[in-house]
Amino acid sequence: MVSTRNPLNIGASARAMANFGFSQLRVVNPYDVAFREARSAVGAAPLLQSAEEFPSVAEAVADCRLVVGTTSVGHRELQHSIRRLEYGARLIGRTLREAPVGLLFGSEKFGLSNEDMSHCHWLMRIPTIDADLSMNLGQAVALCLYELARDPKAAEAKPEKIRRAGAGENEQITALLTEVLRESGYINPVTAASTEEKIRRLIRRLDVGDRDVPVLLGMLRQVLWKVKPQ
Amino acid sequence: MVSTRNPLNIGASARAMANFGFSQLRVVNPYDVAFREARSAVGAAPLLQSAEEFPSVAEAVADCRLVVGTTSVGHRELQHSIRRLEYGARLIGRTLREAPVGLLFGSEKFGLSNEDMSHCHWLMRIPTIDADLSMNLGQAVALCLYELARDPKAAEAKPEKIRRAGAGENEQITALLTEVLRESGYINPVTAASTEEKIRRLIRRLDVGDRDVPVLLGMLRQVLWKVKPQ
Repeated sequence: MVSTRNPLNIGASARAMANFGFSQLRVVNPYDVAFREARSAVGAAPLLQSAEEFPSVAEAVADCRLVVGTTSVGHRELQHSIRRLEYGARLIGRTLREAPVGLLFGSEKFGLSNEDMSHCHWLMRIPTIDADLSMNLGQAVALCLYELARDPKAAEAKPEKIRRAGAGENEQITALLTEVLRESGYINPVTAASTEEKIRRLIRRLDVGDRDVPVLLGMLRQVLWKVKPQ
Repeated sequence: MVSTRNPLNIGASARAMANFGFSQLRVVNPYDVAFREARSAVGAAPLLQSAEEFPSVAEAVADCRLVVGTTSVGHRELQHSIRRLEYGARLIGRTLREAPVGLLFGSEKFGLSNEDMSHCHWLMRIPTIDADLSMNLGQAVALCLYELARDPKAAEAKPEKIRRAGAGENEQITALLTEVLRESGYINPVTAASTEEKIRRLIRRLDVGDRDVPVLLGMLRQVLWKVKPQ
C-alpha cells in the first residue's frame, strides 16, 4: 500500500488479507504513523502489527518476481498494458506458485503515481461500470484478494443436495391430509376418488424436503385429532 | 441492509452498488438515522438519498421473487441450505433476469437474525478461509455485487495484445547495437561473427514491444554518436 492516507483502509485491507489467506502486508510511506492500531483490522491485528514499512516502492518490491499495479483507469494515458481483474488474477496465481508477487495499491485520492507504476510489469483494473467513480480502497483490496483466492470450480458445483421425501413418506402425508380433508367436509363423496388423486399430485408437486416430513406429519396429526369426532 | 449500525457501512455499500451497476438500496431499521449523509458513499450520494426505509424485512422484500440472506456461517445451526458465493451468484443472476431479487445483509455485530433468515429462500456465504473471522460489512457487500456483475468470460480473455516489433525493426536494433558495441571495443574482431549472432539472438529474446522500437533506436543512435570517432 503506497502513500495511503486513511489508517482505517490499511486496517480493512489487513482484515481482507486474513479473510482470504494472505499474510505479507507492506506499507510504503503511510501518511498516518498510527496505522498499526487501526481498529478496522478486527481479527487481523497481528497481521497489521507485523506489516513491514519501506521508504520506497523499489525497496518494497525488491524480492518480487512480478509486480502488478492496481488502477481505476480514469483519464491518464497509461504506459502499461492493463488487464481485467478476472484475467490478471489468473496470471498472478500462476507466478505466485513459484515466487513472491507484489500487488500495489495507491493512495485513496490519487492512486499510484507514474513513478510507482514504472516499477510494475503491468496494471490490473477492477471492472466497475463507470471508470470515473473509483472504488473504496478497502473494498478494492478485498475484491482483488477474493478473485485471487476464488475457486472457479465452485461456480459449477452443485449446492449441498437437500434430500427430498421418499415415495412412502409422500404417501403418508397424502393419506393423512386426505383424512383431515375428509373429516373437515372438504371432500365430496361423489368425486372422492378424483379429489384424492388431486391431493396426491399436489403433494408430489410440493416436493417436500426430507427433514420437513416429520413436521408436516405432526401438524396433520394434530389437526386430524381436532377435526375427528371424539 | 437489516439493522445496520455504522452509517459508513451503508455509504460504502452504496458506493459499491454504483461501482457495479445496482441501484435499489433498501434499509430496514437502520441504527443511525443520519445514514443518508454518510460520506463514505463518495460518488453514490444520489443512490443513498433514494434508499427506501422499511420497518420490517417482510415489507422490504415483499416484491422480490427470490430472497437470499448472506452469512459468514459461524457456529449457529442454520435451518437453510447454504450456497457459496460463486454458485449462489449464478442462481441469483438467472432469477434477476425475470424478477426482483432481494439480497439481505445483517448487522455488523450479529449478522442476520433467525427471524430475518426465515424470510430467505436460501443463504449465501463468501468463501473466506476462516469462518470465525467475519468480513467487514462494506467489503462483503462489494464482493457479492462484484461476483453478481462478474463476467466469467473475462477470465479467459486475452489481454489487449501488445504488438511486438517486426523482424525488420529487430534487425535495425541489432545493427545499431552491434555498431555501438564495435565502436566501444566490446567485439573482438576474431570472434566478431559469432558475437553478432549472439546479439541478434539476444534482441529476439527480448521480444521488444512495437512502441519501444523508436525509443531504443533513439538511445542507440545517441550512444553511437558519442562513441564514434568524430
